[in-house]
Amino acid sequence: MEKDEDLKDDPIAELITSFNELNAGVVEELDEEPSPLEFMRYVARNTPFVVRGGASDWPAVRRWTASYLRDSLAGHHVNVAVTPYGNADAPTDKDGQLVFAKPHEEEQPFSSFLDYLTSSHSSSSLESRGEVRYAQTQNDNLRNEYSSLYSQVPPSIPFARIALQKEPDAVNLWIGSSASVTALHRDNYENVYVQVAGQKHFVLLPALCQPCVNEQELEPASYVREAGDLRLQSDGGDKVPFAIWDPDNPTLRSTKYSHLARPLRVTLEPGDMLYLPAMW
Amino acid sequence: MEKDEDLKDDPIAELITSFNELNAGVVEELDEEPSPLEFMRYVARNTPFVVRGGASDWPAVRRWTASYLRDSLAGHHVNVAVTPYGNADAPTDKDGQLVFAKPHEEEQPFSSFLDYLTSSHSSSSLESRGEVRYAQTQNDNLRNEYSSLYSQVPPSIPFARIALQKEPDAVNLWIGSSASVTALHRDNYENVYVQVAGQKHFVLLPALCQPCVNEQELEPASYVREAGDLRLQSDGGDKVPFAIWDPDNPTLRSTKYSHLARPLRVTLEPGDMLYLPAMW
Repeated sequence: MEKDEDLKDDPIAELITSFNELNAGVVEELDEEPSPLEFMRYVARNTPFVVRGGASDWPAVRRWTASYLRDSLAGHHVNVAVTPYGNADAPTDKDGQLVFAKPHEEEQPFSSFLDYLTSSHSSSSLESRGEVRYAQTQNDNLRNEYSSLYSQVPPSIPFARIALQKEPDAVNLWIGSSASVTALHRDNYENVYVQVAGQKHFVLLPALCQPCVNEQELEPASYVREAGDLRLQSDGGDKVPFAIWDPDNPTLRSTKYSHLARPLRVTLEPGDMLYLPAMW
Repeated sequence: MEKDEDLKDDPIAELITSFNELNAGVVEELDEEPSPLEFMRYVARNTPFVVRGGASDWPAVRRWTASYLRDSLAGHHVNVAVTPYGNADAPTDKDGQLVFAKPHEEEQPFSSFLDYLTSSHSSSSLESRGEVRYAQTQNDNLRNEYSSLYSQVPPSIPFARIALQKEPDAVNLWIGSSASVTALHRDNYENVYVQVAGQKHFVLLPALCQPCVNEQELEPASYVREAGDLRLQSDGGDKVPFAIWDPDNPTLRSTKYSHLARPLRVTLEPGDMLYLPAMW
């Protein structure tokens, strides 16, 4: 109560509270793709939605299994992000100071990467796993690194292409295990995320929750492999502005507004499509 | 320079400056009405546009002249807002204190109102004019006070009705002279303004210029007629939050951000249609 007393007449607290009152605390679910005009209404309201099964007819969703990918990408090397805890691009403690931890990146034969994922998948304890590997490049990788698979997804999402009058800026394929966690962040892109296989749990905050997330300037640091161990090494570059509050650990590193945030949670199943508005 | 030095690294100043760099300093002009999807793109970008001649076929635009209205509304009384300087709903000095000045409202026979407008129109000096009269009710007046004229405008603007999935909340007719000024303000409505006759000069600021406009809590006051004079009398009600900066008088009552504002100016001619986004 004391906390809320402090925020009486605070315009930012009022804004967040009104937003919570006016908006449902769940992600809207559609059972078919929206028209371009319907989509544009969501863009205008900066509001996410899920199309359950919206991509279930995509060849990628119907075909891609571990063994199919192993065959298709036999002999290919892929970029793999390696971290000790699945904390790629995440605020991480380094000698008592919070830094922005970038993963160690290495090229691995796709088959070795997949072996590691599928075996680590079966082991649930962090200790026995040793490290977390995640293919997470964001450089339009499905039209580059994984171009042999590109024909199995549509070249664009028609409702978004027509509404936004733009071809996709980037088409990315991410392959990880349940150990991969993406830290709370935001992108200045309209995103359509499609779950091809497995599940992903999203925790979403609206753009106006910016005062809740405790954005700080963090020193960048990168993991390096040294004698088999992963060690975090300062990069010495420009500081990175990044949210250090974690809605899954809400009392840690909070701001006076964090407790007002009402994160939306949604789990995607294979074939589901999520519209993630810019700045969420 | 000193002013700008103060604003170095100020995130609000950066936001306004980036907005100015990324957006044209003029209102976009279309030569035909947009489709619902095209309109929704403007709504999503919170960006105004003008459709030149977009309403030129409306019966209202083709028919309404002073003499036509005089005949149509013969015997009708209308609500008229009366102020000494055209300052209805405007920040106004009262004994050295800035108050929110509401007009004196009175019912007048439409013909007397029109006589006053057309005669005051020919007199350019404030002194000889005495007072400014403006029919400016915003209570859906074209479907109430002026309902006999309602059939001469379309019941809705189709591109907006389809895009926003809503019939108009209100349809208002405003009748004034060149002496009527509307103080800088914002509404939480998507507005389509149609110029039926005469001209109107708009000065528009984007919603993010909120820090430029110096919003203050003003005591409400109303003009009352006393022995032929208009006197401003305190209402004693709740204070009204209102912008006290005027982009046409930019050095007066400014904030440290006001000089960064780049107001968009546009003049409407008969038949022109202006989309005014919510919060502009």
